[in-house]
Amino acid sequence: MSSLVEQLIEALKVLPGVGNKSAQRMAYHLLERGRDGGKQLSEVMRDALERVGHCAQCRDFTEGELCAICASASRDRHSLCVVESPADRLAIEQATGFRGVYFVLQGRLSPLDGIGPRELGLDKLSERLAEGEVREMIIATNPTVEGEATAHYLAQLARQHAVKPSRLAHGVPLGGELEYVDRGTLSHAFGSRTEIL
Amino acid sequence: MSSLVEQLIEALKVLPGVGNKSAQRMAYHLLERGRDGGKQLSEVMRDALERVGHCAQCRDFTEGELCAICASASRDRHSLCVVESPADRLAIEQATGFRGVYFVLQGRLSPLDGIGPRELGLDKLSERLAEGEVREMIIATNPTVEGEATAHYLAQLARQHAVKPSRLAHGVPLGGELEYVDRGTLSHAFGSRTEIL
Repeated sequence: MSSLVEQLIEALKVLPGVGNKSAQRMAYHLLERGRDGGKQLSEVMRDALERVGHCAQCRDFTEGELCAICASASRDRHSLCVVESPADRLAIEQATGFRGVYFVLQGRLSPLDGIGPRELGLDKLSERLAEGEVREMIIATNPTVEGEATAHYLAQLARQHAVKPSRLAHGVPLGGELEYVDRGTLSHAFGSRTEIL
Repeated sequence: MSSLVEQLIEALKVLPGVGNKSAQRMAYHLLERGRDGGKQLSEVMRDALERVGHCAQCRDFTEGELCAICASASRDRHSLCVVESPADRLAIEQATGFRGVYFVLQGRLSPLDGIGPRELGLDKLSERLAEGEVREMIIATNPTVEGEATAHYLAQLARQHAVKPSRLAHGVPLGGELEYVDRGTLSHAFGSRTEIL
């Protein structure tokens, strides 16, 4: 095998979820049938990795000073939704009709890994809350141990600035069967049952 | 979301097996934690797609005139193994102690898709057999309908040049359980049973 093909297979393994076999398949696919798409991918990848930085306001990825949402005049600046990652922001943006703005932590509090409030840009978030424009902070961290700890910290921060903290409802997912819902979720959903009006 | 990030997600979908969600995950992974690896991938991909062509002798991918195996002085030119794809060649190279040379069809006979002997370079293969150096042609096409048809065609070609054609043994895979082996394979393995000596 030519060494350039070997290099390509090796380099493809930086992609998450791509091992030796997938990398081989990708490399051969690009060489056989995807040269144009592959060249374009190579260019876009180079440009994106060089030019994409963080939005000055919400820390989401953007190649400009502000991301499209923070720069938009039509978003409601009284509602601020805090998420862990850009993928979470995208999921909320696609699934809900939320018209407010976001703050992307790019991580979660994890003292053992050296990730504290500063690494998540919470000083910047604190300044923003102090400006007084935000009225409600919707905390949409993941329902994991670290996500919950982060949510707790964020709620305290909100209260310090007289901002109302809220979080996503937890419970039984729609379309699931109770039998297959995990115990913790079921117990929580049972305890937080709501009255049928 | 910034448009460059959107472009990157879109471009990643040229990779086989990568849909919208995987592309998102890959893009965010590269931006968050894999910028160096991603830049290198982008460069290697550009170089490979520009410079990798086919080996003049075996049609495998290579950036030179000949691939490493065809250029090697230590391979036995009396044995020629014919495979459908570079991935198949790699699999045989890694699994067996084969010290002969290869011919890579880069496909299989498929008249409905317009893939005939010419598209598979069989004219070149025929010339090579006519030179008289090859004594055995090991046909290692895939055990599919098209692969078998290709094997049949190749065997005839070999006989025309007085070269001995052979093919991989078919049967029950090692380490499997008979219960889970498909009927066709089991029937073939039963019919082709070998005497225990």
